[in-house]
Amino acid sequence: METVSLNQAFGGTQGVYRHASSATGTDMVFSVYVPPHEPGARLPVVWYLSGLTCTHANVTEKGEYRRACAELGLIFVAPDTSPRGEGVPDDADGAYDFGLGAGFYVDATQPPFADNYRMWSYVTEELPALLEAQFPADMDRQSIMGHSMGGHGALTIGLSLPDRFKAASAFAPIVAPSQVPWGQKALAGYLGADQAAWRRHDAVALIEDGARIGALLVDQGEADSFLAEQLRPELLAEACRAAGIDLTLRMQPGYDHSYYFISTFMEDHLRWHAARL
Amino acid sequence: METVSLNQAFGGTQGVYRHASSATGTDMVFSVYVPPHEPGARLPVVWYLSGLTCTHANVTEKGEYRRACAELGLIFVAPDTSPRGEGVPDDADGAYDFGLGAGFYVDATQPPFADNYRMWSYVTEELPALLEAQFPADMDRQSIMGHSMGGHGALTIGLSLPDRFKAASAFAPIVAPSQVPWGQKALAGYLGADQAAWRRHDAVALIEDGARIGALLVDQGEADSFLAEQLRPELLAEACRAAGIDLTLRMQPGYDHSYYFISTFMEDHLRWHAARL
Repeated sequence: METVSLNQAFGGTQGVYRHASSATGTDMVFSVYVPPHEPGARLPVVWYLSGLTCTHANVTEKGEYRRACAELGLIFVAPDTSPRGEGVPDDADGAYDFGLGAGFYVDATQPPFADNYRMWSYVTEELPALLEAQFPADMDRQSIMGHSMGGHGALTIGLSLPDRFKAASAFAPIVAPSQVPWGQKALAGYLGADQAAWRRHDAVALIEDGARIGALLVDQGEADSFLAEQLRPELLAEACRAAGIDLTLRMQPGYDHSYYFISTFMEDHLRWHAARL
Repeated sequence: METVSLNQAFGGTQGVYRHASSATGTDMVFSVYVPPHEPGARLPVVWYLSGLTCTHANVTEKGEYRRACAELGLIFVAPDTSPRGEGVPDDADGAYDFGLGAGFYVDATQPPFADNYRMWSYVTEELPALLEAQFPADMDRQSIMGHSMGGHGALTIGLSLPDRFKAASAFAPIVAPSQVPWGQKALAGYLGADQAAWRRHDAVALIEDGARIGALLVDQGEADSFLAEQLRPELLAEACRAAGIDLTLRMQPGYDHSYYFISTFMEDHLRWHAARL
């Protein structure tokens, strides 16, 4: 693991790191904020999964999470959203919603993507092992959050690994990729046409199929231009109601899909996670 | 004035605007955050001047000022650091420390810069008039802050217009441009070789020549790679001591020159300004 940059912030350290990933077969870059802490302490971890087109850098620069993480004693981890580099296949038309920057947190089964696009394994296995080995992380206290495509990742990973993640939260998540254009394109491209294989990567379908988690928190801007077509939080609300899952869904008037929205509610989410860690 | 973008954040609005500047003869872009407020209210204003290579965007994205401005009821204005566009002369070698992104908050007198590089007039006259006309700003309650080259701008403007600005603060400012390489290159290039013309654009020289201001706050990272050669806060401390100016200079161990440093102490500065507005 190579340190790309290390900056002191709010009494802790914001690092950016690069390592050769066996999951993706590429170099991967991620960021970790470690808050001020006593020597030898192990700290709870919040995972943040980013949205389409993003790298680790968007939330690291614009997420405004360090102040709250420093106060609450949380490690904050932000992976990239896809493999990158020479030879990594991309969307045939170079579109923003598939391929580079759009890994959708699945292990692809379809050529030519199956070799590199293994973001599920990367985020749930390889990077946690690296985190535990290299940082003062208490892996018995983890939770997960994300934005948009990363909200989809946080919900599906949280629902699939409820013993690991005490809770999951999201900003403007894709809650039912099987039912919306972004998700249909991505899941077909990475997993193939058989929609049975999509269900474990669809939060609403996972809940319908019996997955559960301690608690969910979702903030959704009402001025988000993707709300009606791609995000559809009402589908998650209905699934949680039917399943008895403790979902807090907050519709936020005037807010859009940007980091201006995310940064506004970041502290709320971090306090919510900290209370569950 | 054209609205480039408008995003709701922390209950207020973060706007980015473009207008044709008569001061610089170019289009200029700036950002304004207006916190939540009662209809008809006029709010105090904090000016933020940015450093070398920056535009309005750096602090707007990375400054983490909106939360505190929303709480304290402060308008936050971030101008660009130079004129830009076709025909605007740049450094002969394209260096980062002169020309584009490096206006140094002076009105240039030297060709070919004198036509466009009029950032003093832009920041102290033209943009305040636009702000008063277009935003709910109380121009009787203004203060000013900045980073690095923008810290130089905040100090020199604050010291030159003490009736307008109740206070000035800075992160890692250039306090004595006449005595350091960045400043010597810039002041010679914009104002000519006669160093007498530099003194009103040098905070330490201004104080030596009798300028005063209500209060100054400076944060300086001890791990800042520009500290010893370009910034030299001890020169400001000595000038303020001799002049009886109320300077709070805080050396911050471990912090560098980046927005990770700025964002860490932004809230402190905004509270300090709010207490004086």
